[in-house]
Amino acid sequence: MRLPSPSIQETNVRGVRLFEMPCSVDPNRGRLTVAEVPHGLPFSPQRCFLIFGVPTGQTRGQHAHRTCSQFLLCTHGECRLLVDDGTQQAEFHLDRPTLGVLVPPLIWSTLRLHSADSVLLVLASVPYEEEDYIHDYADFLTLVQLPTP
Amino acid sequence: MRLPSPSIQETNVRGVRLFEMPCSVDPNRGRLTVAEVPHGLPFSPQRCFLIFGVPTGQTRGQHAHRTCSQFLLCTHGECRLLVDDGTQQAEFHLDRPTLGVLVPPLIWSTLRLHSADSVLLVLASVPYEEEDYIHDYADFLTLVQLPTP
Repeated sequence: MRLPSPSIQETNVRGVRLFEMPCSVDPNRGRLTVAEVPHGLPFSPQRCFLIFGVPTGQTRGQHAHRTCSQFLLCTHGECRLLVDDGTQQAEFHLDRPTLGVLVPPLIWSTLRLHSADSVLLVLASVPYEEEDYIHDYADFLTLVQLPTP
Repeated sequence: MRLPSPSIQETNVRGVRLFEMPCSVDPNRGRLTVAEVPHGLPFSPQRCFLIFGVPTGQTRGQHAHRTCSQFLLCTHGECRLLVDDGTQQAEFHLDRPTLGVLVPPLIWSTLRLHSADSVLLVLASVPYEEEDYIHDYADFLTLVQLPTP
């Protein structure tokens, strides 16, 4: 069954978008939610990773990417995602598998998983490259505040 | 941190492979497991879907694809995946997020989720096309048993 396109909401943080993904609900067979290239997922992932077993109260992330876009969704449990473009910040509460967040490059993001059985799925637009990561917030601010040439 | 390649195991069913994905374990920050194109994930997904909220004892799947390859993993809970190439069958118990199964085209597959809070992630190599599905087992057997031209 072909599902409709997601409902996409802009946010106050540059390029960050919320996706309410379509969901098929069948009382006998359960639920299915989908993200499909190009409308439901704006890139074809080159890397997919899961974060899980994070002790309550611990954070992950706290970095930005130079070129990588990411699409994040909480497949079980709950998590809070803080995003920051250097000027504007926002916090999202990911509490259902149908809610995805698109995080473009040059967005500082921080993640808090609600409990150790929460699971975050990250679909990434490029393969892993250590050089793509910006781990220092001051470096991040310098990069995003460069004037356009 | 770059993780090592997955450990890949052939099975008795044509083209079906088990992937034990690499996992980073940090007692303070939790776990991270990854599938990356091309060695950890043999295609770049065009569609990603989650199956969840399946009542205990219900099955999903029970079809084959003409051209679509799928990579399946249970991100939370447990499920059983039965695969059948028309001649050989196998059943896999997906009980951890680090265990992925590659299911190539023309494999009949059936899924049983262990409980309603189990979550299955499916990464698919092509966009949704109803014509790609084979819903009738007799049709499937006819297709897979055609002699090579």
